[in-house]
Order: sequence, then C-alpha cells, then structure tokens
Amino acid sequence: MVQSKKLTAGIIRNDRLMSDSRTIRYYDSAGQTRDAKDARPVEEQPSIGELRLDPLVNEWVAMAAHRQGRVFLPPKELCPLCPTTGELLTEIPESDYEVVVFDNRSPSLRPPMGDWALPDIAGPDTDLGTAAGKCEVICFAANHGNSFKDLSVERVRVLLEAWIDRTEELSQESFIEHIAPFENRGEEIGVTISHPHGQIYAYSYLPPRVMKMLEAATKYKNETGKILFDEIVHREIRDKERIVAQNSRWIAYVPYAARYPFEIHVAPLNPVADLTGLTSEDRDAFAPIALEVMKRLDGVFGIEMAYIAAWHQAPVRVGRDVMRLHWQITSVRRAPGKLKYLAGSESAMGAFIMDMRPEQSAAQLKEVVL
Amino acid sequence: MVQSKKLTAGIIRNDRLMSDSRTIRYYDSAGQTRDAKDARPVEEQPSIGELRLDPLVNEWVAMAAHRQGRVFLPPKELCPLCPTTGELLTEIPESDYEVVVFDNRSPSLRPPMGDWALPDIAGPDTDLGTAAGKCEVICFAANHGNSFKDLSVERVRVLLEAWIDRTEELSQESFIEHIAPFENRGEEIGVTISHPHGQIYAYSYLPPRVMKMLEAATKYKNETGKILFDEIVHREIRDKERIVAQNSRWIAYVPYAARYPFEIHVAPLNPVADLTGLTSEDRDAFAPIALEVMKRLDGVFGIEMAYIAAWHQAPVRVGRDVMRLHWQITSVRRAPGKLKYLAGSESAMGAFIMDMRPEQSAAQLKEVVL
Repeated sequence: MVQSKKLTAGIIRNDRLMSDSRTIRYYDSAGQTRDAKDARPVEEQPSIGELRLDPLVNEWVAMAAHRQGRVFLPPKELCPLCPTTGELLTEIPESDYEVVVFDNRSPSLRPPMGDWALPDIAGPDTDLGTAAGKCEVICFAANHGNSFKDLSVERVRVLLEAWIDRTEELSQESFIEHIAPFENRGEEIGVTISHPHGQIYAYSYLPPRVMKMLEAATKYKNETGKILFDEIVHREIRDKERIVAQNSRWIAYVPYAARYPFEIHVAPLNPVADLTGLTSEDRDAFAPIALEVMKRLDGVFGIEMAYIAAWHQAPVRVGRDVMRLHWQITSVRRAPGKLKYLAGSESAMGAFIMDMRPEQSAAQLKEVVL
Repeated sequence: MVQSKKLTAGIIRNDRLMSDSRTIRYYDSAGQTRDAKDARPVEEQPSIGELRLDPLVNEWVAMAAHRQGRVFLPPKELCPLCPTTGELLTEIPESDYEVVVFDNRSPSLRPPMGDWALPDIAGPDTDLGTAAGKCEVICFAANHGNSFKDLSVERVRVLLEAWIDRTEELSQESFIEHIAPFENRGEEIGVTISHPHGQIYAYSYLPPRVMKMLEAATKYKNETGKILFDEIVHREIRDKERIVAQNSRWIAYVPYAARYPFEIHVAPLNPVADLTGLTSEDRDAFAPIALEVMKRLDGVFGIEMAYIAAWHQAPVRVGRDVMRLHWQITSVRRAPGKLKYLAGSESAMGAFIMDMRPEQSAAQLKEVVL
C-alpha cells in the first residue's frame, strides 16, 4: 500500500506502512516526499480487548488489559513521537513532519476480525463483546516542546484537514458508530507522553455521554421542533457575557452551566453535524479562533494549563439531524496550585459541583492580553 | 437546642450548637458528657449557590462560588478536624470524640429559605434554581493519622449508626431527594484535609448517576419482573471469581464491568433500599467485612490507596422498590507510581477504558495476607 490523496486547500495525504503493518498517514501542505522506511524490528500486536456491559447504568466499559505496560512518561531522548533521527527510531520514520496520523500501538479499541455486532443490552447476563473500534494518534508538531497554541495558522489548517479526513474515512467502516478526535494535555490529567499530540477514538458503540446528548437533543426536537444545540448558541449570543472569542464563522463561549473551572465551547455559526460538513470558509476561519482560545487559556494564570480538547460530532449513523459539531475544551486547573478533582459527588453520584461561576472564568479569559 | 437521642446498640447522639449556629452531633457508645463550648468567634455563613441546567445532557450543575477559598491542605497543627486542644480551636469543641457529624462550613448545597421547588427541565432557557440540599462532615477518628482501616469493629458500628441516623433524619426534609454518605481519601483525588473524614451530601435533585441507575432498574423490572441489583449479586455469586470477601450477612466483589483499576462493591445479602432498612444482624456484621475490604485494598501495593467509598441508596421518594443499598469503593491507583485519569474518552465521551481485567484486580485483592 502506497496511497496518495488530494484533500482541500492544497493538502496532500500520503500513506505508508510501519514495520508492524500499522498505517501512518502524512498530511502535508508543501508536496513533501515521504519515503523513509520504518527500520524498527517487528513487534507483536496486542490482541483485541473485551467490551462488558455495566448493567447498573447500561453503559459499555472497554477492557484493554494490554495497556497496563504502555510507554509512561519517557524522557525527551526516547520520545516516540519525535521525528526519527540517527540514534532514535520513533513512530514517525521521517526526519520531519507537519501532521501525521498513525494507528495507536496500544489501542483501547481495535478493528474486529470478520463479522462483528454489538451484543444486545439485556442486563447482568449480557454477553461479552469484543472492544471493536479504532484508536489513532495524531501528531501536529515535530518540535517536542511545542503546544497547540504555538502552531501557525497554516499548521492548524492542516490539522483540521486531517481531522476531517479521518472522520470521513472512519465513517465508512461498518463497525464504527462514533468518532471523537481529542487532545489531552498535561501530566496532571494523565498524559503519558509529553510530546504534543492528539488522539482519535472511533467507537463501535455510542459513548455514554453522546447517548445522553442524543436523548436530550431528540427529546427537545420532538417537543419544540427546534435543534437544542442551536438554541444553546442563541442563548449564549443573547446573554453575551460568557462569549470569549468570535469571528465571522465561529463563536467561543464558556457555557451557562460549565462544569469545569475553565470550560470553553467553540462552534461554527453555521451549524453542521460533523467535521466533514464544514465549508471552506469555516475551515479557513477555524485556526485564528482556535489559537486565540488556547492562548487565552494559558494566559489566565501565565502557565501551561492541563486540558482536554474534544470534538463532539453527530454519531455516524444516528441523530445526524439533531446533533451539532462543537469543540469542547475543559481544564481542571482552578488556581495556580489547585486542581478540581472528581471525587465523591462527581465520580460516585455524577453530580458536578462548580467552585466558580462561569461568568467569572469567562471574564478571566477575556481579560487576557494577547 | 440541646438534644439527646438513643439509637440502637446503646449508641447515643447528643446535639450541640457551634458558635456560628451550625449543629454538631456527637455519636457515642459510652455515655460520654459533651458540654464543651465552641469558643471561636462567629464567622459569616456563605450564601446559597446556584443550580443550573446543563441542557446538552439535562443534568443539574451546582455552583458554589464561595468554595474557592476553602481550607486547603492545612498542616497537622492547624487541622480543623482534630479535637480542640488548648492552643487549637477546631470544628470539634470537645477534647476527644468517637464519631461526630457537623454541618459543612463551605457547603456545596444549603437548606433553602422558605418554599423551594426544583425548576422544570425545559432546555436552554430553564430558570436558575438555588443549590438546595445539605452538606455535612463526618469524623470518625480523633487521631489525625488514622485511617478507616485502623478503626475498631466497635467504632465502625458507631459510624454505621451515624450514617443510618443521618439518612433517617435527612429523609424527613421536604427539599431533599437523595442522600449519599461518602469518604474521599488521598491527595491524589483532591482531598483538601488529610484528617480522616467522610461527607454526607443530601441533594435536592436526583444526581445524574442515580437517575441513570433508576432508569436501568425500572426498565429491567418492567421487562423481567426482577430486581436488577439482586440479579447482579446473583451473577457475582455464581461467577465466584470476583468475590473478595463474604460473611453471613454481606458480600464484597469486584463488579463484572468495573471501571476503575480497583473497584469493590459491598452489599447486604438480604437486600434493602437504604441504610435505615438494615437489620441489627446486618449492622453488627458490617464492620468485619468493611475493615477486611479496606485492609485488602491497602495491602495490594503495601501503600495507602487513594479511594472514594460511597453509599448508593434508593432515592428518598422514588424507586424505593427497585433500587438497592450498596457501598461502592473505587480507587484510581493502577500501580504504585501510576494513577488512572479520566481523560478524553472518559471525561469528554463518558466512555470508560479499563487497563486491567476485573478478575485480575479481584485476584490481587484476594491474595493479600491480612
């Protein structure tokens, strides 16, 4: 397999095989040649995990026992996400890259062998399923010390194109029901490799929070004829107080009922179901607001904030008429030396307690001088 | 107000007022006199917070802005949960105690003034409510360095009686819908005071996870005529592999679809809706299994494990015929130097990934030599 594909905005994707048969995809804006070989010895692939139903709440839990031994905070000299150099053979065979996406070496979810179907939800005796799905890693900066906010507008455009391309391609797989590109940053929230990178989780089931969003959106549509998410954005525009950034195509706000000390939602003003629906104007206008939001977040305390930045999309096959694309950034940092933890109320009961009003965190974000 | 109340097993509760009008309740097994006065100056009480609907998922989020400034990891010499000594005036005016329960000084939820009702859930324009409810602190060891597992059988019996008494009394309040006694242990999960203590959260709304458990239990009852939780326990007894402790009245197991590296559920073999339904035999038999489970947990790695131990009860007014009491202990510690974090998949999508099979953690817990 050597595949080359033209995407929008002059971006080209080139696919290569890694030594253990995983695929690596290079997304480039300048027509680079990508022919470096993965010279590492072949390693055994982990087997697929289990999917078990938690009958107390009717939620699937994926069991990926092989992940216990995964790479844990390697020093910079051994970073597997840096480009390959003479001494160090990494996940990326090339000596430089713009954006690359490759299959995760310790995936929580894996493509199934042969036919596959999710077991019916029935209760405590529900059959075991296999943890089908796909996990990919997305790297967007060859420089180990960079962050998302240090990227150029052009690089964020390539990154967005890669997210869109992955959503489009993964949506074709019969065993995939939902696609979530996200980035975790910060050791405080468990990042095990400090090189900036994101992940793409493609689930074979609707994740519990997506299921709940789908239920709320469907109920609202049935009762009012309106799209819930669009009404939420209208309310934020009307209230104005929690808007932290805006341009002609996108809006960024701290939601009315934020549940983290710093939480920002970024949504296109012309709503779409998922990343593939974004127009070229939307695509071009995303980088400026994304970079502004990330700079504001790090500017609040003048430190690198730990965060989770996740794309919420409509599921692949259901709810596409009621669900809307948005990018959700949440940070557990509530003050320079203090984090918000999910303890008894949040974790055991699911009841979030916020120590800060959303209007206050919105004001702090707006006050940052860029 | 000076109130004295006889509970079961010879335990007596004495109520006293703190200087700022909060109530402190002493639970004693040896008829102690409790007449020490709170000699601290009166502090202003924080105002009640807001309850906001997160319309994306139809969940309430409580906003308690005053909590930002709460006590944070005070040194032992300034511990507010130690008994009062000459130099140090603490939350507990007495110089010793068995078990005390007092109103939280920085409560997330507070009793409402006058009439109160939860706003109807309608969507993005749902009215703001006040964060009604009640938060209490429960201390069960005067010794700052103790842990739950160091308690005597007799002390755990007093603690259980206090949990039962609080459930009974808080259930009488018209604005309370659900009562959750829990303990957080470990700085890793955000405990801000290291003195061993628990909390009691009494919510004016059904916490989201309780709501989901209620939905699953109701659906199962309607479809099968059976009680979901009882079937779950039957399955664990049948599978046997994940049972970690058992006596004539209680069973402790790692659930089939555990979502934390170490997760243990402890349930009475004669099921009840909430703590108040436990028979005197159940009450007497709880301490031995509770202490065994906590010793096994700390024994796995030979270190004090961070954990959340929460009582799941039937809500006060609904689902009492389908919901069952159980005690859920979860630990995020997956190895001596490693924690499980809730990052992109768990936090943004609600989809839990487990790095360890429940049978493996059950085996590790069983292997601990007590």
